Amino acid sequence: MVDGVPLVIPEVNPEAIDGIKVGKKKGALIANPNCSTIICLMAATPLHRHAKVTRMVVSTYQAASGAGAAAMHELELQTREVLEGKPPTCNIFKQQYAFNLFSHNAPVLENGYNEEEMKMVKETRKIWNDMNVKVTATCIRVPVMRAHAESVNLQFEKPLDEDTAREILKTAPGVVVIDDRTSNRFPTPLEVSNKDDVAVGRIRQDVSQEGNHGLDIFVCGDQVRKGAALNAVQIAELLL
Amino acid sequence: MVDGVPLVIPEVNPEAIDGIKVGKKKGALIANPNCSTIICLMAATPLHRHAKVTRMVVSTYQAASGAGAAAMHELELQTREVLEGKPPTCNIFKQQYAFNLFSHNAPVLENGYNEEEMKMVKETRKIWNDMNVKVTATCIRVPVMRAHAESVNLQFEKPLDEDTAREILKTAPGVVVIDDRTSNRFPTPLEVSNKDDVAVGRIRQDVSQEGNHGLDIFVCGDQVRKGAALNAVQIAELLL
Repeated sequence: MVDGVPLVIPEVNPEAIDGIKVGKKKGALIANPNCSTIICLMAATPLHRHAKVTRMVVSTYQAASGAGAAAMHELELQTREVLEGKPPTCNIFKQQYAFNLFSHNAPVLENGYNEEEMKMVKETRKIWNDMNVKVTATCIRVPVMRAHAESVNLQFEKPLDEDTAREILKTAPGVVVIDDRTSNRFPTPLEVSNKDDVAVGRIRQDVSQEGNHGLDIFVCGDQVRKGAALNAVQIAELLL
Repeated sequence: MVDGVPLVIPEVNPEAIDGIKVGKKKGALIANPNCSTIICLMAATPLHRHAKVTRMVVSTYQAASGAGAAAMHELELQTREVLEGKPPTCNIFKQQYAFNLFSHNAPVLENGYNEEEMKMVKETRKIWNDMNVKVTATCIRVPVMRAHAESVNLQFEKPLDEDTAREILKTAPGVVVIDDRTSNRFPTPLEVSNKDDVAVGRIRQDVSQEGNHGLDIFVCGDQVRKGAALNAVQIAELLL
């Protein structure tokens, strides 16, 4: 347990963790999934366990923190400059980031996906131990400081209605449901910043899929906490 | 023609335009599709004409301009306040918008979708004159001033490879392709602001779909121009 948060590495598959050395050896390395993958899977995995995800379409809204503290600083600096009518300082990012967004800066591979997106595709398969699950992702950098958001469309093998999905997520470890349609209150990066839990909302039956085989959800998670440091510590505690 | 931009109302279906009065009657009303729909369909329609879209999954990154000039002003004001460590003024939006993002403020309907999303679902069917096309959308407000961005996943009835798709889009009216994988240069809202053309990039075969039946693309369009005023003028010129 870390700060009262139960170990929540869904379906940790030892084969998924490369380079881990446990026991009496020193210098153990913890292989942590990518931040976007972790945040997405914290919400998708409990649903997957229940109804088996066959396909997942993800679009991300990634914060500056994912590119490091210097990136956060540059976003702030640029924002001040732009508000003063000055040209933005572009050291970390090659273009204006203030009041703008762009495709993730990770290198683009031959198949047209960038490394950030292919990590989601590959890591999901490893973590779920399912080489057949179909995943596509589009990763976008947005002018938010820390905490990523993700729009996730899910297709299931078995039917899963939105009410059951919501109940599953309400009891899922490390996950909090913020899903108030009347008040139009759903997860936001600001609200999850500096928190351990990943927040999920907009839980609804996908109108574009037959029967109850599809869901759309919106997930937010602190990129620095659950997206990186917290998850690594939890893996370590699980294994060591 | 408007400013050299050809009339680009894809598959204008007279039944899709409600309340239009043409000819000698005064006070003609132009029914314009929603901004998010227009921007998405400017890129999707040429591909649809070629290979028939059967399903479309959209996640939007919508600018402040979509909520009006006062919303743009509030975003700027909030950003200044937040940078000065002051609490943000929330008149238009109920929460902080600066360095944050949230589910679109349009009312949420009984099926869990908000009005903005259901407009995309319904208007796509009207414009393509196809009540069977499956569409799902998640609309998110991001701290960008004007120009929406959209991540669009497409499923086609006929195979359509990415190279052919790129060529189709290069010659599509009102569309410009920005798709440089080597330089990691793709459409951004800033780049399309104050321009008439909708920009599309990240054109790639969807790794989660069989054969060549799927594509992922990323589209940006000025919400005020093509997303509203320009398109309305073009409809008027087409009909009057």
